[in-house]
Amino acid sequence: MYEYRAPRRDIRFVLHEVLEVEKVLAAGGREDVNRELIDSILDEGARFAENVLSPLNWQGDWHGGPRLENGRVSTPPGFREAYRQFCTDGWAGMAADPAIGGQGLPDVAYIAVGEMLCASAMAWRMCSGLSEGAVLALSRHGSAELQARFLGRMVTGEWTGTMCLTEPHSGTDLGIMRTKAEPQADGSFRITGTKIYISWGEHDMADNIVHLVLAKLPDAPSGTRGISLFLVPKLLDGRPNGVSCASLEHKLGIHGSPTCVMNFEGAQGWLVGQPNGGLACMFTMMNHARLGVGLQGLGLSERALQASIAFAYERLQGRAPRGALERDKMADPIIVHPDVRRMILTQKAMTEGQRLLCFYAYLLIDVEQHAPDEGTRKRAAELVALLVPIVKSFLTDWAVENTALAVQVHGGAGYVRDTGVEQYYRDAKIACIYEGTNGIQALDLLGRKVLGTAGQSVKTMIDEIAALLKSDLPADFAPWAQRLQGLLAQWAELTKTVAERSAKDPEELAAAATDYLNFCGYVLVAWCWLRMARVAKRALEAGSGERAFYEGKLVAARFYFERVLPRADAHAAGARAGAAGIPMLQREQLEA
Amino acid sequence: MYEYRAPRRDIRFVLHEVLEVEKVLAAGGREDVNRELIDSILDEGARFAENVLSPLNWQGDWHGGPRLENGRVSTPPGFREAYRQFCTDGWAGMAADPAIGGQGLPDVAYIAVGEMLCASAMAWRMCSGLSEGAVLALSRHGSAELQARFLGRMVTGEWTGTMCLTEPHSGTDLGIMRTKAEPQADGSFRITGTKIYISWGEHDMADNIVHLVLAKLPDAPSGTRGISLFLVPKLLDGRPNGVSCASLEHKLGIHGSPTCVMNFEGAQGWLVGQPNGGLACMFTMMNHARLGVGLQGLGLSERALQASIAFAYERLQGRAPRGALERDKMADPIIVHPDVRRMILTQKAMTEGQRLLCFYAYLLIDVEQHAPDEGTRKRAAELVALLVPIVKSFLTDWAVENTALAVQVHGGAGYVRDTGVEQYYRDAKIACIYEGTNGIQALDLLGRKVLGTAGQSVKTMIDEIAALLKSDLPADFAPWAQRLQGLLAQWAELTKTVAERSAKDPEELAAAATDYLNFCGYVLVAWCWLRMARVAKRALEAGSGERAFYEGKLVAARFYFERVLPRADAHAAGARAGAAGIPMLQREQLEA
Repeated sequence: MYEYRAPRRDIRFVLHEVLEVEKVLAAGGREDVNRELIDSILDEGARFAENVLSPLNWQGDWHGGPRLENGRVSTPPGFREAYRQFCTDGWAGMAADPAIGGQGLPDVAYIAVGEMLCASAMAWRMCSGLSEGAVLALSRHGSAELQARFLGRMVTGEWTGTMCLTEPHSGTDLGIMRTKAEPQADGSFRITGTKIYISWGEHDMADNIVHLVLAKLPDAPSGTRGISLFLVPKLLDGRPNGVSCASLEHKLGIHGSPTCVMNFEGAQGWLVGQPNGGLACMFTMMNHARLGVGLQGLGLSERALQASIAFAYERLQGRAPRGALERDKMADPIIVHPDVRRMILTQKAMTEGQRLLCFYAYLLIDVEQHAPDEGTRKRAAELVALLVPIVKSFLTDWAVENTALAVQVHGGAGYVRDTGVEQYYRDAKIACIYEGTNGIQALDLLGRKVLGTAGQSVKTMIDEIAALLKSDLPADFAPWAQRLQGLLAQWAELTKTVAERSAKDPEELAAAATDYLNFCGYVLVAWCWLRMARVAKRALEAGSGERAFYEGKLVAARFYFERVLPRADAHAAGARAGAAGIPMLQREQLEA
Repeated sequence: MYEYRAPRRDIRFVLHEVLEVEKVLAAGGREDVNRELIDSILDEGARFAENVLSPLNWQGDWHGGPRLENGRVSTPPGFREAYRQFCTDGWAGMAADPAIGGQGLPDVAYIAVGEMLCASAMAWRMCSGLSEGAVLALSRHGSAELQARFLGRMVTGEWTGTMCLTEPHSGTDLGIMRTKAEPQADGSFRITGTKIYISWGEHDMADNIVHLVLAKLPDAPSGTRGISLFLVPKLLDGRPNGVSCASLEHKLGIHGSPTCVMNFEGAQGWLVGQPNGGLACMFTMMNHARLGVGLQGLGLSERALQASIAFAYERLQGRAPRGALERDKMADPIIVHPDVRRMILTQKAMTEGQRLLCFYAYLLIDVEQHAPDEGTRKRAAELVALLVPIVKSFLTDWAVENTALAVQVHGGAGYVRDTGVEQYYRDAKIACIYEGTNGIQALDLLGRKVLGTAGQSVKTMIDEIAALLKSDLPADFAPWAQRLQGLLAQWAELTKTVAERSAKDPEELAAAATDYLNFCGYVLVAWCWLRMARVAKRALEAGSGERAFYEGKLVAARFYFERVLPRADAHAAGARAGAAGIPMLQREQLEA
């Protein structure tokens, strides 16, 4: 069983050496957030994640997860205590606005800790992560009265929050939901309906749970334009409010978290935002929520990478192809086998490359909010919008692949429970599904973000990447730079092709979307590796004492360009293939 | 919860219309095995798999699997009864030689039923599958006395068999195993040691269990040349023989099967084959065992495909991009979404393409055994040797991807237990690990099968494929034929490059192996699709009444060439990248 070790060195590398967040944040008037502050937060976060959360990960899984008895859900041993400490230490309100009692840490700094929380105990972290989203929605759209009544205790973590969207017949298609909201004389509403897949819908870690529930007003128009958002507390002034957990799901993974069927039986609630404007409110926090799921993918990839490395240097089996390396032992550590290194370097190249991509997106949120000039803010917002579906989908699909690689590196030891890696593999898959399936992310990217801006957002991103290519790169990076240059041209051309086709036939957009997203992901991570390689090269040339760290970066960069990036071409081919090749089919044509 | 439906139509398509097995088998003197006989066996097998086994699959999983109490392992409810019926119906000895009491069915026919057994209840099927391997090893290498004493009841299924190879410190590297065999005066041996990951090492389905155990003689040379094979029964004349199950593993999947830690404490056993010739005996059954694991992958892919199709036509969510299709319903079935069809066509293209590849390999085993002229037999043996590691690795890696796609098609419903697809996803991963990890398969392919024959086996395979390209193909297949032609040239060139490099540095071989194997897999499945498309096209032109079935084949073939085959190029790039890009690394270079 591996315990988690926060990758503080790599996070500092990304934040300080590559993204230079101190400088970027200072330009946005956040001189208060300097490198020392960020590092001390990283240290504190690492301590909590490593010592308190990491053991809860497998304990919560092995224990079998939360239990429902008489309507009450008890969490696995240790979960409550860890959550108390999380709140006491002030983590719950870390990113929230100081105006509502938060500490107002920039996103990019808080989220570095967020990665640690996801990696060390994803199932446990979902509870506070969802609460942060609820705080965001409420602080943007809740009335002053609602905020006064609920927000304070949510920011401290005393009360947690949920998102209640899905119903048995209504998941991706929210427009057909049936939960009803009946207006009352006092301005409140009575909410009635059944919601499913509600993470942390009921539990014993907090005194109260504030549900944000999508429902329909009596006169609502049909479809997604007729959905409203309501705040529905579990307890009202300490008394039950017609909200109950009917059952818990048995799931592939995230066993430590309760996934609830929630019944609302005339529960009292209050409107958040405008009538029929529920989806707009949800969109407010969508960037955060989706990046947050990408962050879960990143966390699991990191934890899986650590496990693979540990096993590969400890497990003795076989001999190095060029001859025994450790003759005094019965066998060499399996890291001597090129195929094991291939698996681990794949994990490292994707995990560390995606970390930069993900943190870059979060930094852009800070820029979007704080940059002094509007042009910079708009540009950041445009890039955030473009990157969010990519980070969500690309990092979670790769979390599945990375955790599968960790299982494979371990062989039989990865398939049995003891090492813990099979749990990462089980936990990872949900991130491809919730908060909008990865297929939905692809449609959002290509439809709304790319074609919806007539390709402008892609152009902005390409310009950003091209700027690096025009900068002073080491001579031996020329093949990588050239390759990336070619991909940028391909990206522009592919976008044009798909746009032209989609203008004539909406099936074309949907047929290209997922491959288009993955193509973007590989190009972006290539850019990230070129950035990191440049920093590493300079550090080595400057005589850094951390040679191993920077050498590893250069090896991973090369590996990425040689052995991972070729996949971009396969996705480009898929995106270019067109809708005619995936026609609507009768069931008899598919079955055999 | 989906129950399994045996894909009899597709299996008949592959056996009769594409492979023309009746003709091939007749050429080998097996006129007894005609189309009617095969079809009636398929019908019987389907009935057993669908009605008896399919429900056991999830029941065995949900039940939590076998339990160990007082040294005895009890299997999940229904497992014993199903096994009894399996034996009573004569399935246990179906493929075994009539000389030892079997029914001598050709491999390709029996294995069509084998796919059904794997698909309907993989965990349960492992028991009889392992027994078949033990029968094969014993019938080839056991003394007449051992055969007389054990083989009869193993062929009937009264007694089951196991393979005991792995030890805690010795998995892939069998040379360092420690289990000892002490010679006794009566010619038998006393076996002492601990074996782990022993599937069906102890259970209550049969009266006795015959373990085939690898162990070392006192004077054995070190390494793999010092390993001998022993037959060690659980009971000797009804009395315990010092063999016991110490514990059961908690695993990611195949929960229905007991994975045992087995202790041998001076257990009486008998040598099988030559002293220190244990590995040679294992090699005898390796082709069967590895193809059998590929077959497990195929079975899971098929079952996952069926689930995806069923869900996609039943689940209503959203509207078709070109406008609502079923206006009278609240939403359209999700098959209207091109991205859902992309996922399902990926599953279909790989599952059905791989079925032909797998059955082709089994047919070659029949040809290898029965063809009248030696040239044909040798050629078949050469191709079998080449195909075995590809079928094992490529079909199991794709079973993971196919089952993951099924989870994704289902969204949240795929992540919770109720639909059963998350079980396929968990079950699939083990097939990439056991019977030689997929990394080992790649080394076997490139080292032993390709470079070990100086590229001759690849040349033979390329010739076989080129023959199809020279044949009378429909005009509109020209782009596919041209693409395949180009890949054949690339294959020859890639083989040459890797061979030249590997001759100078063994690291080169290991660095290229996995990508090389996957490249081969995609090329072979392209060939399979071209063969199937040709048959389908002709059937449609001949006015077949099964239009939907054949049209579906043409759609899947096009999809494969347009959207799956591009991955071959990424693997070619990986195989060509060379060893310099994955150098031996210090742990500090990988960690962050």
